Amino acid sequence: MDIEQFRKAGYQAIDRICDYYYSLNDKPVVAQVEPGYLRRALPESAPEQGEPWSAVLSDYEKLIVPGLTHWQHPSFFAYFPTASTFEGMLGDLLSSSTANPGFNWLASPACTELESVVMDWAARMFGLDRTFHNESKVGGGVIQTTASDSALTAIVAARTRYLEQHPGTPLEALVIYVTTQTHSFGKKAGLVLGLRVRALEVRAEDHWALRGETLGAAVEEDHRKGLHPFILIATVGTTSSGAVDHVADVGATIKEKFPSLWLHVDAAWAGVTLACPELRETAQLAGINEYADSLCVNFHKWGLTNFDASAFWVRDRNLLINALDITPEYLRTKHGDEGTVIDYRNWHLSLGRRFRSLKLWFVLRGFGVEGFQAYIRRCISLNNSFADYIRASAIFELITPPSFALSVFRLRPDASTSESASLDELNALNRAFVAAAQTQHGILLTQTDIDNVLCVRFAVGAARTEVGHIENACKLLEEVGMHCLAGKKVGTSA
Amino acid sequence: MDIEQFRKAGYQAIDRICDYYYSLNDKPVVAQVEPGYLRRALPESAPEQGEPWSAVLSDYEKLIVPGLTHWQHPSFFAYFPTASTFEGMLGDLLSSSTANPGFNWLASPACTELESVVMDWAARMFGLDRTFHNESKVGGGVIQTTASDSALTAIVAARTRYLEQHPGTPLEALVIYVTTQTHSFGKKAGLVLGLRVRALEVRAEDHWALRGETLGAAVEEDHRKGLHPFILIATVGTTSSGAVDHVADVGATIKEKFPSLWLHVDAAWAGVTLACPELRETAQLAGINEYADSLCVNFHKWGLTNFDASAFWVRDRNLLINALDITPEYLRTKHGDEGTVIDYRNWHLSLGRRFRSLKLWFVLRGFGVEGFQAYIRRCISLNNSFADYIRASAIFELITPPSFALSVFRLRPDASTSESASLDELNALNRAFVAAAQTQHGILLTQTDIDNVLCVRFAVGAARTEVGHIENACKLLEEVGMHCLAGKKVGTSA
Repeated sequence: MDIEQFRKAGYQAIDRICDYYYSLNDKPVVAQVEPGYLRRALPESAPEQGEPWSAVLSDYEKLIVPGLTHWQHPSFFAYFPTASTFEGMLGDLLSSSTANPGFNWLASPACTELESVVMDWAARMFGLDRTFHNESKVGGGVIQTTASDSALTAIVAARTRYLEQHPGTPLEALVIYVTTQTHSFGKKAGLVLGLRVRALEVRAEDHWALRGETLGAAVEEDHRKGLHPFILIATVGTTSSGAVDHVADVGATIKEKFPSLWLHVDAAWAGVTLACPELRETAQLAGINEYADSLCVNFHKWGLTNFDASAFWVRDRNLLINALDITPEYLRTKHGDEGTVIDYRNWHLSLGRRFRSLKLWFVLRGFGVEGFQAYIRRCISLNNSFADYIRASAIFELITPPSFALSVFRLRPDASTSESASLDELNALNRAFVAAAQTQHGILLTQTDIDNVLCVRFAVGAARTEVGHIENACKLLEEVGMHCLAGKKVGTSA
Repeated sequence: MDIEQFRKAGYQAIDRICDYYYSLNDKPVVAQVEPGYLRRALPESAPEQGEPWSAVLSDYEKLIVPGLTHWQHPSFFAYFPTASTFEGMLGDLLSSSTANPGFNWLASPACTELESVVMDWAARMFGLDRTFHNESKVGGGVIQTTASDSALTAIVAARTRYLEQHPGTPLEALVIYVTTQTHSFGKKAGLVLGLRVRALEVRAEDHWALRGETLGAAVEEDHRKGLHPFILIATVGTTSSGAVDHVADVGATIKEKFPSLWLHVDAAWAGVTLACPELRETAQLAGINEYADSLCVNFHKWGLTNFDASAFWVRDRNLLINALDITPEYLRTKHGDEGTVIDYRNWHLSLGRRFRSLKLWFVLRGFGVEGFQAYIRRCISLNNSFADYIRASAIFELITPPSFALSVFRLRPDASTSESASLDELNALNRAFVAAAQTQHGILLTQTDIDNVLCVRFAVGAARTEVGHIENACKLLEEVGMHCLAGKKVGTSA
């Protein structure tokens, strides 16, 4: 494809994206395809000769689009939102066009410098203490691929610091702390690093939030066993229920009693609420600023910026660099040797990286802080109206109070009979309910398990969701719920 | 930005990319900026109100483009190439527009299925044994972010298998094998995973390639010390010099004597040469097909596909899944439970992932296998003409035979005096030469260190490099070299 062919193809691609967003509301949320549909439709091998773009684009429309689950659909309430904005796309496009890996300053000064500046913009927007700003030259911010990567990076830095402070500790005795509500990447990090993971118990009456007391008791117990907990992954907004650990309480316990324990705060989903001053107390800003060693907020979830944009801040950049710096001759540069620039390759696990800050820059400039705040507030308001519907419903109940833009609820037989339904029966009922709701193509939501209770999650966040979509969702869930209840006389067999 | 504003902004962005490629040849290869240039030019905080796209795009042109090192410049010969093609950009753009994380089949069937198919296309193009194809349902292919990620994933799977076969082995006794020529990600993987790394010595007379004999002696030595080597990272085309380990020889040693040792072949840069039948012997296809447990080829280096597109194949997919599967309730799906689909989240370290296969599909269809081969052959031919120039030169010498599209050479005083120059003097001379060459804005190349010899690397691969650019590079290097030699009478002080 030459430059003029690209101009034409590029315009066409832009037009297709416009068509996509004009028609999105009318598409089924979930792809209506069966496993293997695409392999059956495609040839076994790449073509010998190149094909014209028109053939490729036509196949994209015909074969790929119908196989997409539409995460940008205004009635997508599953998992957590994955952001896609025009500003983000344009950033990705321009980033892709120059293909700068940006692993050190010289490899692309603009990549490094823009990331350093834009992460400070984000830090200011969230009210983070100056020590987390790149400008402080003490801590700093870097854009990682995912929250899993951010957590892995924190764990590696924490392990390195711990082993320097406690030389000779066997790796087998190290323990990563999470809670029973932490995202599965905590356990996965244990698999990846070959380390123990302990999931601390949290309680329903605390809305599944970790307290300092629980942490303290666990550490003392493990110390008695000869184990060495070295990092706690606390969460602001868990995936299951949006639970928010008491960061200040937990942090105070760490500072007072276990200063070798690294505090990583995973606010991958809910951290964007820090942009709104009125939400900072709920989102644990004070605790983060006082105690966190590292923090992760994914702009690519609820932060209007296309994947990948996992913002990761550390209080002390030297702990990262100390853990990860390998500089072979072929990566040495004059400025790197002089230490006058950030070489971001030492801030994450890989070497190569995209020019990710460009899209975040475009988003922050395009929306402005006020536009960003308005979007967050609107999502929370939409979720509140959903939660009000659940509260008023005769067949649904909230399992936990709504958290930011997430509601967790379940179907139940009417109040008079619900007490006689067993947990197993209720779980079976709700599994059937989720399965039935997922066959409705106008909506997508997913289930979770909180302390053995099968619940349904409703996460608001697609940029085009309006109040009408919430109302439609309520109506549809009511219908499916009534149908499930009619089919299964749970708890009323007597 | 609404849909029609995006259409306009998108057309503008496409036009800017066209302008960029029309003007690329006239730009300096390296950014002409000083550290801190961008922070000084940008405000401290994000704007309160959103700004119009025209202001953002104008700043992109004014502030970002001049700070880019132009990896697509036809006179970029540094590091390794980073691919950027129009086909790749269009794939990235459409992928970005739907923002599908694709961590399991349901989250986006098209993402999973296209990746499964396109990785089989690539496997066929490279002549990989059927066991590596997804279609075999035994092994399979997945697109990772980087070669570092691919290697980390291989190491985690290898460690899990080894510890299952040798329960109770302390982590401190495990050893990752690389060679002194392996990319720095090998040592970095040791830092990340907290494991020992041993760099096996390779010899100049073997052109820095690992032999089975060296491996065998090392394993036996380590076993005597109570250590447990569990993975070897062999390389096809090292970063320093393009060295190619003897995969079949090494593999036979492993199979015969140390079957618990995992063989990962890192062909991140040179693996794309497998597309050309006449290069498969050099690129170790037979050894890979017979012995490799895993293989990495980065399409985003020399493979015409924009970052990120690190192709990673395994001989036995269950070893990956076994090492990495965590399935919490909120990620369970009907098809996943039934095992009828690939859930790619269990094939890599993170959960979220881009729809990366789209751009590889566009590239393979746009170029066809023949177009892909033609590009690889052209780069090798250009490099051969550069190597011929070095061979004929009175002031330069090749340090190793050219490897694929990479030449490694150094400046030397003329033949009559070179024997009297010490290694330190020659290294200092070449360090000065690289520094001087890097101040010339018409070219970029980087240095390396092979067994304490400071060398200069010349890597061909930008899609727009023509024979004229090679000739210009030779002329410029000759001038800079002559100037350095005139300034420093190395080895002739007597």
